[in-house]
Amino acid sequence: MNFKSSFKGYAERVNKKLDGYLTAQGSLIESMRYSVLSGGKRFRPVLTYAVANAFSTDFNRVDSSACAVELIHAYSLIHDDLPAMDDDDIRHNQPACHKKFGEAQAILTGDGLQALAFEVLVNDHNLDPETRIKLLQELTRASFEMAEGQSIDLSVVSQAIDIETLKNMHRKKTGALLSCSIQLGALLSSKCGVDDVKILNEFSKDIGLAYQIQDDVLDVLTPQNVLGKKQNSDIDKNKPTYPLLLGLVESQKSFQELYNRAQEKLRDLSVNADELQALVAQLHTREF
Amino acid sequence: MNFKSSFKGYAERVNKKLDGYLTAQGSLIESMRYSVLSGGKRFRPVLTYAVANAFSTDFNRVDSSACAVELIHAYSLIHDDLPAMDDDDIRHNQPACHKKFGEAQAILTGDGLQALAFEVLVNDHNLDPETRIKLLQELTRASFEMAEGQSIDLSVVSQAIDIETLKNMHRKKTGALLSCSIQLGALLSSKCGVDDVKILNEFSKDIGLAYQIQDDVLDVLTPQNVLGKKQNSDIDKNKPTYPLLLGLVESQKSFQELYNRAQEKLRDLSVNADELQALVAQLHTREF
Repeated sequence: MNFKSSFKGYAERVNKKLDGYLTAQGSLIESMRYSVLSGGKRFRPVLTYAVANAFSTDFNRVDSSACAVELIHAYSLIHDDLPAMDDDDIRHNQPACHKKFGEAQAILTGDGLQALAFEVLVNDHNLDPETRIKLLQELTRASFEMAEGQSIDLSVVSQAIDIETLKNMHRKKTGALLSCSIQLGALLSSKCGVDDVKILNEFSKDIGLAYQIQDDVLDVLTPQNVLGKKQNSDIDKNKPTYPLLLGLVESQKSFQELYNRAQEKLRDLSVNADELQALVAQLHTREF
Repeated sequence: MNFKSSFKGYAERVNKKLDGYLTAQGSLIESMRYSVLSGGKRFRPVLTYAVANAFSTDFNRVDSSACAVELIHAYSLIHDDLPAMDDDDIRHNQPACHKKFGEAQAILTGDGLQALAFEVLVNDHNLDPETRIKLLQELTRASFEMAEGQSIDLSVVSQAIDIETLKNMHRKKTGALLSCSIQLGALLSSKCGVDDVKILNEFSKDIGLAYQIQDDVLDVLTPQNVLGKKQNSDIDKNKPTYPLLLGLVESQKSFQELYNRAQEKLRDLSVNADELQALVAQLHTREF
């Protein structure tokens, strides 16, 4: 089966839904649409759909969660790119939000998108209130942890830290929302039992860490036109990274092992996990 | 009856609850506590408690909402004070969050507080899921509108705008969260019927606008040591304000009329509104 086309389908589906949520008039609509609809791999919503699909869950129940995780991700990128934060001018091969709309509007665009993410979920009448509450419990926690992770990230610039501190930072900064994307898919799936949830939980931790280590490696190896943002931005900012702490070869080995371990865990699921396996394999070989 | 002491009691209650929510370790805890627990009138939570009290609602049901509106308010002040926004260095008679912790951590502190506000509400097990969803529908919308209002505020700096544009901006920037504080109190009160909700809705609109016009007036009339922030900050920033558009005397007349109208509306409530009347009267004569 060609899973690549199904992943593409998920990304197109979330793009269409996001476009639908970003139609109301208002002073932030232009900057929100600019940042949210300009591109991005849609990896988080694709994960949510893929998990839900493994359990044959109706996608009409999944759309709001898929959009919500992407809106949180989009808000975090806008704030991360700000001059006071990572000071990145390019995002998705176009000027970052603050370069296009100014810093003040970029801050507010991020603020608005965070509120909108929760608003989208809380108003999904396809889901009963209990389910919405469970989803929101995960998403609010992940969003808070993400802010904490970014705060640690900025506080360790130019510092010699150990691998455990780096891991904790990444677990919050990147891992929390990635795990959440998987957990929302699980929570939405009535056929996903307690054991499956446990497996997906472990799976999501490995994926989250692997993804971030890989990001660190790609930041070193990938040219800007492929990456969609500046190359070597971590080194330029004296950020502690996996390649810096472990070396490039060890870092590559490290994320590859994590992806392999994640794939092995999927074998214990009570349902066919071929599509999720294919998704991990695709991640494994991603170039940006 | 001495309502002043009951308002003081509400403020103390929300302070204690906020303190309880801000105890977990983490990289943002110091800056969150600095900004949230440093003062502030707690006007929004006091409104929520006062509305709930009018309908004899158990305050254990109200605490999470009271904290949530204050957390949203606190986050908005931190972001508003940033150099790229209103560029205010003093808040609650102490250095603003970004002066104390730097811009990056201030942005993240605000981001974290917004997430925390929703997290507090979504995890309140005193409330059934349906009620939590209703409260969150109001709060997410208000939080989004507040970001929009601030965006309009910044876009009209140095511009000649008409009173309707100013009113629309204020309705979103200040009015949305104030109205929400009242509506949450109503939603939490089982004895608050449809007619009462309608009255409180109208009431909240008048209060919201009156409060903002009064803020504009106080910004001109009140010295920094009383205001807790810089005097004449609006004029210094070329912001269109009510005093600028209508003159000081007309502005004073305007917010006084709105407060009077709000008090009249309270008379139609199905319950005793003496405490709410006293709260409006206290607002009417506030000096900061």
